[in-house]
Amino acid sequence: MSKIIKDPVHGYISVDDFVLDLIDTPVVQRLRRVKQLGFSYLVYPGANHTRFEHSLGAYHLACEMCDSLDISKREVKAAGLLHDIGHGPFSHTSEEVLVSWFDISHEDFAEEVVFSSEISSVLDSWGVSSDLVLSLIGGEGKYGQVIASELDVDRMDYLVRDAHYTGVAYGTIDYERLINEMKFVDGDLIVMEGGLKAAESLLVSRFLMQPTVYFHHASRIAEKMVMSAVEVALERGILDGDGFRRMFDFEVLLKLREVDGFPGNMVNRVLNRELYKRAVEVNRSSIESDCVDKLETDIEFRREMEKVIASEAGVENVIIDAPPRVGMEELKTKVLQGGDVKRLDEVSRIVDILDDAQSDQWKFRIYVPEGTVKEVKEVSKEFLELENIDY
Amino acid sequence: MSKIIKDPVHGYISVDDFVLDLIDTPVVQRLRRVKQLGFSYLVYPGANHTRFEHSLGAYHLACEMCDSLDISKREVKAAGLLHDIGHGPFSHTSEEVLVSWFDISHEDFAEEVVFSSEISSVLDSWGVSSDLVLSLIGGEGKYGQVIASELDVDRMDYLVRDAHYTGVAYGTIDYERLINEMKFVDGDLIVMEGGLKAAESLLVSRFLMQPTVYFHHASRIAEKMVMSAVEVALERGILDGDGFRRMFDFEVLLKLREVDGFPGNMVNRVLNRELYKRAVEVNRSSIESDCVDKLETDIEFRREMEKVIASEAGVENVIIDAPPRVGMEELKTKVLQGGDVKRLDEVSRIVDILDDAQSDQWKFRIYVPEGTVKEVKEVSKEFLELENIDY
Amino acid sequence: MSKIIKDPVHGYISVDDFVLDLIDTPVVQRLRRVKQLGFSYLVYPGANHTRFEHSLGAYHLACEMCDSLDISKREVKAAGLLHDIGHGPFSHTSEEVLVSWFDISHEDFAEEVVFSSEISSVLDSWGVSSDLVLSLIGGEGKYGQVIASELDVDRMDYLVRDAHYTGVAYGTIDYERLINEMKFVDGDLIVMEGGLKAAESLLVSRFLMQPTVYFHHASRIAEKMVMSAVEVALERGILDGDGFRRMFDFEVLLKLREVDGFPGNMVNRVLNRELYKRAVEVNRSSIESDCVDKLETDIEFRREMEKVIASEAGVENVIIDAPPRVGMEELKTKVLQGGDVKRLDEVSRIVDILDDAQSDQWKFRIYVPEGTVKEVKEVSKEFLELENIDY
Amino acid sequence: MSKIIKDPVHGYISVDDFVLDLIDTPVVQRLRRVKQLGFSYLVYPGANHTRFEHSLGAYHLACEMCDSLDISKREVKAAGLLHDIGHGPFSHTSEEVLVSWFDISHEDFAEEVVFSSEISSVLDSWGVSSDLVLSLIGGEGKYGQVIASELDVDRMDYLVRDAHYTGVAYGTIDYERLINEMKFVDGDLIVMEGGLKAAESLLVSRFLMQPTVYFHHASRIAEKMVMSAVEVALERGILDGDGFRRMFDFEVLLKLREVDGFPGNMVNRVLNRELYKRAVEVNRSSIESDCVDKLETDIEFRREMEKVIASEAGVENVIIDAPPRVGMEELKTKVLQGGDVKRLDEVSRIVDILDDAQSDQWKFRIYVPEGTVKEVKEVSKEFLELENIDY
Repeated sequence: MSKIIKDPVHGYISVDDFVLDLIDTPVVQRLRRVKQLGFSYLVYPGANHTRFEHSLGAYHLACEMCDSLDISKREVKAAGLLHDIGHGPFSHTSEEVLVSWFDISHEDFAEEVVFSSEISSVLDSWGVSSDLVLSLIGGEGKYGQVIASELDVDRMDYLVRDAHYTGVAYGTIDYERLINEMKFVDGDLIVMEGGLKAAESLLVSRFLMQPTVYFHHASRIAEKMVMSAVEVALERGILDGDGFRRMFDFEVLLKLREVDGFPGNMVNRVLNRELYKRAVEVNRSSIESDCVDKLETDIEFRREMEKVIASEAGVENVIIDAPPRVGMEELKTKVLQGGDVKRLDEVSRIVDILDDAQSDQWKFRIYVPEGTVKEVKEVSKEFLELENIDY
Repeated sequence: MSKIIKDPVHGYISVDDFVLDLIDTPVVQRLRRVKQLGFSYLVYPGANHTRFEHSLGAYHLACEMCDSLDISKREVKAAGLLHDIGHGPFSHTSEEVLVSWFDISHEDFAEEVVFSSEISSVLDSWGVSSDLVLSLIGGEGKYGQVIASELDVDRMDYLVRDAHYTGVAYGTIDYERLINEMKFVDGDLIVMEGGLKAAESLLVSRFLMQPTVYFHHASRIAEKMVMSAVEVALERGILDGDGFRRMFDFEVLLKLREVDGFPGNMVNRVLNRELYKRAVEVNRSSIESDCVDKLETDIEFRREMEKVIASEAGVENVIIDAPPRVGMEELKTKVLQGGDVKRLDEVSRIVDILDDAQSDQWKFRIYVPEGTVKEVKEVSKEFLELENIDY
Repeated sequence: MSKIIKDPVHGYISVDDFVLDLIDTPVVQRLRRVKQLGFSYLVYPGANHTRFEHSLGAYHLACEMCDSLDISKREVKAAGLLHDIGHGPFSHTSEEVLVSWFDISHEDFAEEVVFSSEISSVLDSWGVSSDLVLSLIGGEGKYGQVIASELDVDRMDYLVRDAHYTGVAYGTIDYERLINEMKFVDGDLIVMEGGLKAAESLLVSRFLMQPTVYFHHASRIAEKMVMSAVEVALERGILDGDGFRRMFDFEVLLKLREVDGFPGNMVNRVLNRELYKRAVEVNRSSIESDCVDKLETDIEFRREMEKVIASEAGVENVIIDAPPRVGMEELKTKVLQGGDVKRLDEVSRIVDILDDAQSDQWKFRIYVPEGTVKEVKEVSKEFLELENIDY
Repeated sequence: MSKIIKDPVHGYISVDDFVLDLIDTPVVQRLRRVKQLGFSYLVYPGANHTRFEHSLGAYHLACEMCDSLDISKREVKAAGLLHDIGHGPFSHTSEEVLVSWFDISHEDFAEEVVFSSEISSVLDSWGVSSDLVLSLIGGEGKYGQVIASELDVDRMDYLVRDAHYTGVAYGTIDYERLINEMKFVDGDLIVMEGGLKAAESLLVSRFLMQPTVYFHHASRIAEKMVMSAVEVALERGILDGDGFRRMFDFEVLLKLREVDGFPGNMVNRVLNRELYKRAVEVNRSSIESDCVDKLETDIEFRREMEKVIASEAGVENVIIDAPPRVGMEELKTKVLQGGDVKRLDEVSRIVDILDDAQSDQWKFRIYVPEGTVKEVKEVSKEFLELENIDY
């Protein structure tokens, strides 16, 4: 028997009993309460979509790709559905904290979730290997490329889905064509010549979505406000990492709202959309000191620096945002051109410059309560040896 | 100065400083945390949209209608934005409980919210009368017809918005045409002849959305499970009506989850989507006894009956669902035909039968834990004098 | 080998070598030059779509229905593609003339086209029976219901396609759901309970599209102007029926444009959009004399009456439009409800009234050159015994 | 009074009496019979849209831009509507022939059309200067930038419109945002910082649409087949340039179809989609001889070479396609960044490489009847000194 679920992005998604059994577990149902885009809804009011529907979408595209590639493997479909099972609350928002505090990514954590929940026994009961599913989620092996590679079902789904819910048109990609034009060549998942423009288009979409949606300063500020609250709660023992990453968005917010001082203050502000402002915003290329590099990797140093700047500027609190530098993995996508397998950035000039162009989108920022911008800007310049502040 | 907000349904929504001041109040921000369709997301995974974006949408259509009607009144725009300010958690889901327990609708409660929050002082500061805004929300006066009448901006927005997020196509209506074809005639807001098909289409859309989305049994079950939990919490004094209606969805769920017994059990089940099943489902026309009428209006009697049936059937708990009977107000929409003002149901045969046809969609149902359907069906037949059970 | 064709309505349409061979025949290619909606583009500027893309769309839906019903028959797919092969120029516009002058419908003419073109030999070469394909086009047998029945792939495609190109929203139907919910029961193609709302929605869509698009007076006027020119050309022997029905739209227009007098005049006016105006417009219910019935069926009488009215009113020319009365076949759609097969109009009140409500949309009209409306109205009233003229 | 026209791309387009008077002229109505994309419908079956609807769309965006820029000038709106009035049949397809044979572009020819038709007297009667409208169409003056500049209403409309009718998703651009973010600075029309991503997106869209739609080899082959027929007809005096450019698509096709020999043969082939095949396809970078440059600019030489190759290869006919090299004007779009006016390609790395990347899309090709590919390839290599043939 199979059931049909209506999805505003893909139309109808067909799920059989095996997949229904997986969907009906609490750890998958929890994804209904983890927003796909963290706090982006504060900028794009429609962006309330969740990891649950994205997981269904990735599963659906995994099925389509299996059809197209003539694979019939339950493991691949399960991996499509479960690829985000290890995500903490607020999706990527918590990922930075979790990785830097506990050094364990959501892909790694997936293993713990699978084996400590009903998932592994559901998989067992259908004769599906949990280890194989986990290795596919990790992008290993031939079929892992469908789930986690340069051009996988995860990326295809989230770009069109984020476009549908934010209303931002840049995410329109022709995933149908792309799926039809991908084939295995010597074990590698390759884009055929007919899919080249669709692949270019996907990469450009992501490039355009980044500053407009994914790195928008206002949602980034809300994220950092809540994550700073989480850090204090972790320090004070109010939260522990293992419990925290199994919570859902509002569980965290409502718990921290009750905490006196900074955590409660931050959460209440975010709930009422009284966001901090940017005191400092600099491009990577404008930074000359090593100080910023250290801020990015050394939590202790960053939290110390926040205190120093706040104290020197005479303000209650400042938040330093030195985001991790992300590359564009998709550039390495393999394509077939004139009979030869090449890298996408070798055959497409537009893709070739994206990695570089993207680093312009990286920003170092400092956030402060409204009315304290000027003081903090001055102090920061001095302490962080910033010559030019762009914003 | 004005700001532009991207909305996936209407494109760009322009908000000026007056409207921004209203948006920036906690009571409007709270609407971001009240889902437009209560628990429909358990059936339509995309239906996570909120009263906040719907309020922005209704405001936007109010602006468009003001332009088309050549009205320039801040009160009308404010009323568009604030028309749902009195909504309790889970939107309409809580409305039934609140009306039957406290006899105060969300339109009535709007007054209390406006005067007990920053809203009234924001309105004052812009020279806008709170009383006038409230009377417009109540549908009073000439301009009240824009906000709350048979064919208002509220209905126009929610139909297209619910279609966008559920993916159900029936909600596609031509609101642009409708707005252009509405004019004041002797103080009445009338649909011109060129808008007749668009008006018919809106009513038919709503008719088709009702069984498919609004009255879908699975979301209705989740609603009744949580509302039964709320009733117990109100009885036990864990919640009080005044506080409850100011809460948002997850505030209620997370509070009740901690309560021992029935409330906690219901909420945990809903969070994990372990829903009750239908033991009984009957159309209005199949009901001959007066018993069901009494179940609809008399809370004490209903709750007593739930206990009797549960006890007789030997099950832990049953939930009786006798929803209020809703009419289709839109049928009275006034239209201009051949120079005369008529009622829409006079000039359109299709509209004429909708009110009647709709009553077929009303269902009386009893929900029970999985595995107890058969026992409860038997007992219910006897106690409620039901001859035929359709489901 | 198969090829993929991009269709703005259905996305990608996959065609194999068999279907490509059919597509590559001149009689199918001719459909690229027959507009789907005749002269509707004079009202809806986007309505330039053709029978060719509609045929591809119907073929695509026939494939989807074959998948869903687990049929694997080349004949059904061919019938989907070829169902309009017998259409004359301007689609339905010429159908009235051809049926009334030569008493042969486009379904009948399909046989002649198939056997007098390469189609029959292409079908032969793939082992497909031309007779069987033709019988399916005629709606015969079990599988004929997929192609030509109350709820067939033809209707599903044209409603969504016409909506896409006109921009009129009423045509949005959920054909995906409908297709998934249709099954064979005792040889009859039946809509399952889960498809009931989608079926209702399709019928209502068609009902709403009729006055707005299909019977819009301006495109109807252009049609009748050109068809009057065709009638004169047939009388004068400039065109013959057999040749005419194999022509495409612009072949007819450019040929008639060169003809002196009325035909050339009519075509030049239509090309420059100098359309005749309505002098008379009456609903069926306003007509009491039998005269109009006779005008509908008796060509001689109609053309005589046109001359009489023109001469009495002292105008160059008038065109009488007494369109054939169309029923809504779809009302007889069979559906499954509570285990029993019923007719759709038995289980749906809204559908039940559509047939009746639709007859209100039928109009009797007389068209005249601009500036002669008043004179013709007076004369027509007298000669046709019309009491009330609505327009 | 004003009328409202439904457009599937922009929704409703409002036209006042002035614009209606312009629309009602034969030279504007003729645009209904000139396809926007020439022969692209042979590849994308939905691409039957016309210059008429595109002109309405450009007019509509010109109105929106006027609103946003607070301009109230009938001339600008008229120029939006009339900007393509000088286009020959098949749009850009005939442009190459007309420019190379008569050295007059469609912008230049607009002047002749305006003054030799009712357009100039309609403009006069509304007190609008024909000369001013023509200068705006030519992109002159401050307001000319709205109509014909790097980022004008023409480009915005055709990209979204071509996407709607072909179904190719790359054309989705956020023209609403772009229009809102364009302002005059010192007489120059500048994109504000908030519109930068939308501008980048437009350029990338066009870049992606080129190989997929605009330069698709199959529609290019049909174009060249018909244009070769036109060239022969011009040589033989069957067509003259002045008459030809005032014809519409089917006028040309049906006239040439009757011509014996090559012209009739080419047109019949295109009508039945029996297209020539590619014998040679080379990128610009693969061409080392000057020969190709000469083929591009010297008609005599090209036609001589076609005869020589055909004769040497022993085939009936070959068609050489050396398209003009197009730059991307939009790269020079002026944008405001950090308070300074800069060129878009200075602030956007992705735009910076587009001009260069685009030159990869240019192809030199030779088309021949099916079955003669091999012979022509050999002969061409030798005569044109081509080392590597890519296809």
